[in-house]
Formats: sequence, C-alpha cells, structure tokens
Amino acid sequence: MVNVAILGFGVVGSGVAEVLATNGAHIDRKVDDLLRLKYILDVRDFPDSPFADKVVHDFSVIENDPEVNIVVETIGGAKVALDFTRRALMAGKSVVTSNKELVAEHGCELLRLAQEKGVSYLFEASVGGGIPIIRPLNQCLAANEIEELCGILNGTTNYILTRMIRAGLSFDAALKEAQQNGYAEQDPTADIEGHDACRKICILASLAFGRHVYPRQVPTEGITGVTLSDVAYAESCGRKIKLLGRAMRRPDGKVCAYVAPHLVDQENPLAGVEDVFNAITVKGNAIGDVMFYGRGAGKLPTASAVVADVIDAARHKDEKKRMFWAEGGEDVTVSPAGLESAWYVRAEGTGEQVRAAFPDRTLLARAGAPEGEFALITEPMTRAALDGRLAGLKACSVFRVLD
Amino acid sequence: MVNVAILGFGVVGSGVAEVLATNGAHIDRKVDDLLRLKYILDVRDFPDSPFADKVVHDFSVIENDPEVNIVVETIGGAKVALDFTRRALMAGKSVVTSNKELVAEHGCELLRLAQEKGVSYLFEASVGGGIPIIRPLNQCLAANEIEELCGILNGTTNYILTRMIRAGLSFDAALKEAQQNGYAEQDPTADIEGHDACRKICILASLAFGRHVYPRQVPTEGITGVTLSDVAYAESCGRKIKLLGRAMRRPDGKVCAYVAPHLVDQENPLAGVEDVFNAITVKGNAIGDVMFYGRGAGKLPTASAVVADVIDAARHKDEKKRMFWAEGGEDVTVSPAGLESAWYVRAEGTGEQVRAAFPDRTLLARAGAPEGEFALITEPMTRAALDGRLAGLKACSVFRVLD
Repeated sequence: MVNVAILGFGVVGSGVAEVLATNGAHIDRKVDDLLRLKYILDVRDFPDSPFADKVVHDFSVIENDPEVNIVVETIGGAKVALDFTRRALMAGKSVVTSNKELVAEHGCELLRLAQEKGVSYLFEASVGGGIPIIRPLNQCLAANEIEELCGILNGTTNYILTRMIRAGLSFDAALKEAQQNGYAEQDPTADIEGHDACRKICILASLAFGRHVYPRQVPTEGITGVTLSDVAYAESCGRKIKLLGRAMRRPDGKVCAYVAPHLVDQENPLAGVEDVFNAITVKGNAIGDVMFYGRGAGKLPTASAVVADVIDAARHKDEKKRMFWAEGGEDVTVSPAGLESAWYVRAEGTGEQVRAAFPDRTLLARAGAPEGEFALITEPMTRAALDGRLAGLKACSVFRVLD
Repeated sequence: MVNVAILGFGVVGSGVAEVLATNGAHIDRKVDDLLRLKYILDVRDFPDSPFADKVVHDFSVIENDPEVNIVVETIGGAKVALDFTRRALMAGKSVVTSNKELVAEHGCELLRLAQEKGVSYLFEASVGGGIPIIRPLNQCLAANEIEELCGILNGTTNYILTRMIRAGLSFDAALKEAQQNGYAEQDPTADIEGHDACRKICILASLAFGRHVYPRQVPTEGITGVTLSDVAYAESCGRKIKLLGRAMRRPDGKVCAYVAPHLVDQENPLAGVEDVFNAITVKGNAIGDVMFYGRGAGKLPTASAVVADVIDAARHKDEKKRMFWAEGGEDVTVSPAGLESAWYVRAEGTGEQVRAAFPDRTLLARAGAPEGEFALITEPMTRAALDGRLAGLKACSVFRVLD
C-alpha cells in the first residue's frame, strides 16, 4: 500500500484527486501496489466533494503519519509550500509538486534534502504542464551535452499573442478575453511580465547545465510592449511574435538565459505553436534539435504530470533518485548583453536618419503606418551596438529575431 | 566499471562508439561509474579506426566475458540479431538496440527473457531515432490511459513527400534525390512501402496498450500511389499529404492500427513536420494531445538515443526493469475496415456519375486537371461504404483525411 496526501485542493490538487480516482486500476498496475489517497490538506472544507472525508486542516497530521509515503504539494508560492515541503522531506516522505516558483527559488536545497533522506523530490508538472520535459531532459537526453533550450513556456501569453496575430485584437482586448476564458488570472502580472516563463527556464537551465540558475539572474521582459503594429510588421516579413525563454551554454561553460518577445520565422516549428499550447526545443550535441509540444496548463494535463511523478516515486520507494543540480552563484550566468542577434526595430525618425543609422537595410511595410514610422530587421549585433545606432531616433519596439 | 560491447559497426554502431568517446566524461558523471567500450563485433576489420583494437569477430568472446555488462545490438534484421540478443540476455547482460524489426517481431519474448534474467532490454532508438518517445510513453505518461498514437514515423517518406509538395518533384524524382542525399537506401522498399513505419507503430502500440501487436496485424500502405495531382488537390483545400502510422484503443479494448497516407489539415502540428523529421502525437485521457518532434534518423541522433539507454541500463544494474507487454494474439487487434473517416478521392468519370455518387460535395480544383478527372472530400464513412459509392467510377487515389 502506498499512501498519498495532497496539499492544497485547488485546480491542480483536485485534478490530481480526480486522475487518481479515474485511472486507479491502471495506476495500481503501473505501481505494482495499491495507491491510496489518504489526506487532502486545505484551509477549507469540501462537504459536497466525493473526497470530503479525506480533508484535514493541520499539516502535522500528515507529517506525523508514518503511513504517508508521498506528499503532493499544489499550494503554490514559496512560503507555506516551502515550509511543508521541507518538513515532509525531513519526515522521509517523497514530495511531488507543480510549483514552479518553489523549484526555481529553492530546487537545489530541496533536491539535496531529498537525497539526504533517500526520498524523491519530483516536479515534472512545474514546466510545460502535462508535457513530459523534465524527465526526458534528465534521462532520455542523458547521452548529450545540452547546448541550448528555447521554449514557449507560458500558455497565457501565447494565447494573447495568438489572438493579436489571428484576430487582430489589441493586447488589452486579448488579455480581457483570456481572463474571460479562464486562461489568465485576475492579476495577470506573473504571466504577462514574463515571471512565470522566467521560473520555468530557470528550472530547465538548472537541470540541463547542472548548477542552480535563479530567477534574479535571468533578465525578463514580458509582452506588454507588443503592439498590433509590431504584429503586422512581423507578418510582412514572414515571422510571428512569440515570448521565448532561452538558455544557452557558452563555450566558457557559463549560462546565458533570458526571457523576451522574439520574432520567429514561420518555418520554425515554434511559430506554429498557438493558443495555450507550449513547446520546448532542446539542442543536444549528438541529438540535434528535439521539440516537446502540448498543453502547457489546465487541470487534467497538469494533474496527469503530477500523477506520473507520484507513480515514479511509488515505484522507486527504496531507490535514491539521480535528479540533482549543484548550488548556484554569481559565476554561473552571464548577461545576454554580449549576445549578438538580428533585431526587429520599430522607431520614429526622418528617412535621412534611418538611412544613416541602417544603411542598406530594407524597410518593412504595413497598412496604415503613420508618417515618420519605420521598421526593419538589422544585421546581427549586440544590444549596445544597436542602441548606438538608434541614437537620435525614437525607438518604439525592439525585439530580438530568433536565428 | 561498466563494460559495453557493440554488435555491428555500421552507421549506428560507429555513432555509438563516437558518442561514448566524445561525451565520455559527461556520461561517467551520469552513470556515477566508469563506462568503457570493451568490444566491437563485426565481420570486418577497421584498421584505420581509432577503435581498431576493440574489434572481435566471434560473438562468444563477448558472451563468455563476465566483465561485459551491456551489449549494444545495431546489427539490424531479425536473424543473427535475434540469436545474439537471446544469448546476451541468457548470459545476464542487458541489451540495448535500435533494431525496430527485431523489437516489432520479438519484443515480447525478449522483454520477458530480460525480466527473467533480471536485466534490461531497451530500445528507445528503435522509434523516432533520437526523439525520446519510448521512455516518456512508459513513464511520463504513466498516469494516463493512452487512447491514440499517431505519427510521422519514417523520415525517408516524409522527405520524399516534402520534396513533392515544396519543389513539385514527381515521386520518382524525389526518391532519386533522397537516395543521392543518403536519406533513402538503394533498395527503398521498406521505407516507401510503409514497412518501416509499420514496425514502429507496432512497438508503440504494444507498449501503450499492453499486448504485442505484430506487423502482420497492421494493414500497411506506402506512398508509391501518391501523385503530384493529389498533392495539388490537397493544397487546394488547405491540407498536406503525410504518411501516418496510427493506433487507437477502441471502447471494447481492441487495438485498431494501420499505416497509410493521409490528408492532414495545415493547422494540425503534424502538417508542419517536414524533410526527414519525425513527430509522434500521443493522446491520453488526462493529458490530451502531446507531440514529440525531432530528427527521426541519422547517425548521431540515433546513437544518442542508444547511449541514453546504455546509461539507463548502467544506472539500474541491479534493478528489474518495468517495461513490459504481454503476448499478442488474433484477439488483440481489429481491422480498420470499420473505422469511419472523411476520404479524399481522385477519380475519373462523368459529371453526372459524380453528382449521383456524392451529392452536395464541393469538387476540388487544380491547374491542368484533365477532362473527366474530379476530386473531393467525402463525409465520414467506412471504406466499404466509399467503395459502394465509387462503383462505376475509376478511382485513382483514395486516402483518409485525418480528423
């Protein structure tokens, strides 16, 4: 018998209970044992839920019950969730989570604690919702030195950009629609400012490159500056605007990671990732490019990733897990300031200024462009070099173009 | 120390040796032990190879060396490879392979033998080259009841179709180009007739649905019947022609699997998979659709998948593996004859015959269509119902339309 406790009975937590119930027989076969949901921890009661009799309000009930083998943490945030996760691991229980904030901020410490206690700390659901990416990155791609990770990591912003591109909605209108459809929170800051994508690229980079990359080390720009004018110019040159999280290992071993909107060529598979879907490309030195694609959020996809981790933890009750990365530090990362790329620029100025700043570049066109607005794609250069060229012009939008 | 022997020093086998050498330090860290290539078995000698001193010609040297823990079988075919695989497993060695024919025909027996001997039989590289799909299907998606698998499983045919669609080459010209570029064998039968895709969907279906599905149980149609006319008609209705392997679990538990060309809507992510790339979509009852994408073949991508399995086998030296499916039988599968779908039909006949057979259907148009040729997409029906409608007409091409 394997006993599970769920912390937090919100969208993901209730989805986990549902998947455990719906696919129970299948899961027991996979685990080769009986897997039972014993507790649900929440501040609320759920008298009408089929799981009402499992609800407890005091974490110490779970912490002190030696029958509980696996704790599923779906509380979110990095305060209570951190405390409960530490205590569960200290008590010799494996912990499975979908909490990207906690893993991005404290993953190294929690993985080490799990290792010391001979249990698992698993977080497949923290990146890409139901898309299997953490385990393939750790296992299937083990033969490769990972060179680069690049992904559409946030479903909310991808939905907003898709609606801007396909339906011509303004950013504000698309955000409102996303909120009405339940794809965006009432406070959408973490999504639209790129913080959510930042946490996810931190987790992926830490796992792929072996040392903890913290969110504060990753320059992050969201999509609030993307306008319909930019969407139109991008389309005029066969590209789409996508919010990407990127992490590259440089020849000196340092990690260059950042989150920002990019122009992506329509031939690139990432350009075809629409609505709330996510996709993550991994470049390995032997495998070349591999892409993982699927629903990046949603109750059941995310819950299914959590339950897959629960099954894994239950199967390997007695085996020390190998997933691990070392402590981070200021020497781990390097700023993307030195990273050359082509740039998309939309700015205001005179024709003479533009020709002087960007000789030989073709100007992009869009219907209804006002007098004095121009847009173009530069040759590859650093941001500092670009800013030098832009002196005297009024830059409205500046985005990198993905190679 | 973990000792490895490679059987067959062809494209994949030499790639494995290369990846083991190039990424050696990284691999040793992953394995937490020293992994050494001890033998290469081949009928030939390779005096100029850096691995020349490892070449042996007699399998019993490997079989009888208790130091060899892992045997990499990259011989191909189901004769010598079967014999050596059985003997290696019997001798208590784990076996890793890229040999799809062997797994599709004898996977069940070899997995059982491995289980009895407490070793691993791993074959990530047998499907999708370097794309991680076998392990995610077995592990990451463990929380799901898999409902359907659908994929572009053969890079050669996808290259040929891509060249027909994008460059307007005929099938013969595209095949010749593929051969010149090394993407097709001199005898391309196994690829263009769909046998290779058939073996791969058998492996995926066996793993996903739990009982062995044999190639003879999977109706298979290749791409030799696809013409530029069909490509043009498909484009006229926003679709692309792709060779798909499909396997579905029906409500009665039976598996319906087949390989055939399909018209795929351009909005479907599979439509954007071009050249030698492969992609596999998995539909689970909780996760929804997930897609895995990457290079389906090639020396280093395939070798990297093999080496990932070698690392896995080395890590779990003492743990019984869980990958498993039960013996097959005639009761496992059901013919796709009963599967309704919309159909693309190109046929010859009079306008009157066409209107009588397919009332209310819009005809597709293409430049240069000869008198008496017509094409259309039908409403959903079985193949038998379609054949009834086509009585009296001369059917030239008939392909399913993917939902």
